[in-house]
Amino acid sequence: MWGYPEPIGRLVEQFMKLPSIGPKTATRLAFHVLSMSSEDVEGFAKALHDVKHNLTECAICCNITEKTPCSICADASRDDKVLCVVQDPKDVMAMERTHEFNGKYHVLHGAISPMEGVGPNDVRIRELVQRIGTNEEISEIIIATNPNVEGEATAMYISRLLKPFPVRVTRIAHGLPVGGDLEYADEVTLAKALEGRRQI
Amino acid sequence: MWGYPEPIGRLVEQFMKLPSIGPKTATRLAFHVLSMSSEDVEGFAKALHDVKHNLTECAICCNITEKTPCSICADASRDDKVLCVVQDPKDVMAMERTHEFNGKYHVLHGAISPMEGVGPNDVRIRELVQRIGTNEEISEIIIATNPNVEGEATAMYISRLLKPFPVRVTRIAHGLPVGGDLEYADEVTLAKALEGRRQI
Repeated sequence: MWGYPEPIGRLVEQFMKLPSIGPKTATRLAFHVLSMSSEDVEGFAKALHDVKHNLTECAICCNITEKTPCSICADASRDDKVLCVVQDPKDVMAMERTHEFNGKYHVLHGAISPMEGVGPNDVRIRELVQRIGTNEEISEIIIATNPNVEGEATAMYISRLLKPFPVRVTRIAHGLPVGGDLEYADEVTLAKALEGRRQI
Repeated sequence: MWGYPEPIGRLVEQFMKLPSIGPKTATRLAFHVLSMSSEDVEGFAKALHDVKHNLTECAICCNITEKTPCSICADASRDDKVLCVVQDPKDVMAMERTHEFNGKYHVLHGAISPMEGVGPNDVRIRELVQRIGTNEEISEIIIATNPNVEGEATAMYISRLLKPFPVRVTRIAHGLPVGGDLEYADEVTLAKALEGRRQI
């Protein structure tokens, strides 16, 4: 029986290594690559290579960057006193989109998850403690890890670790999403929203 | 506002060029690449490059292959008298999976589609006619283009073009898919199934 030529099969395998891409999609993508121009394919290959080789972690905030310190850490117009701790570079992007935060960041690159074998030393918590220990200007740490089990555990762990330091540790609020419907909110979110109620 | 570093943005753009991959999926894939090992990323980049540079079209059947003639055209155990005309290399794979066809193939690389600006000269119809004109052994052409408007138009076009040649031109049957349900069949398929009825 005829099978696909080896280069096609190999590219299909590579696409299948990506998340949520199965054999059918991978085959479709591989054949699409075959129909792309040589320049486009080389551009794609180069982009893959460059992501791996031209990016590094900022020596200060651990965010991904082309040069260290990153543009946020180097930005003198931003508040050095407040630090927002997030799990991912994507979360930095999400925070920036709100235009509500003008402090600096610390990117953990994950959350503590015993289930997945991720311990405190596998994320950038040590770097965070070191940063706070050596920078007396920092007065508030906003922990903006995800509102799930791993994110909460990480937030708790960090807050306990920072007890000895003269900084205020806060956690972003839980509650109903704006535009959401009370009727469809899950009990845990609703309980948190009730617990976090404020006078108006 | 902070944006993703340029190499990430560029890789996101490259992923977005692939079919059915939007900005969110592309971003997720790009960050996945960032977390892959260097060897895996280089393997991916190389696979992309190789698909474009190590594959060619078989000089006989136009199927994609690493060397020409391809393994099917070079296979002396296969019947030279019957030619199955398909749109895509993927269709060769589908035909081979049936284990019912032991002839040779001709791959058009598309179907005539005026809507998408694909004319007869944009697919390998000229090569097919030339092949039949120079190979007197060929006695039957099975047209197995897709059972849709473009596939039918291509089948009709080819059958008319092959009128002057002493070959039998056939079309694969339309009808109810095996395991299907008559109740849920669309009218056109059902009409075709009725029209194509055979004595049992």
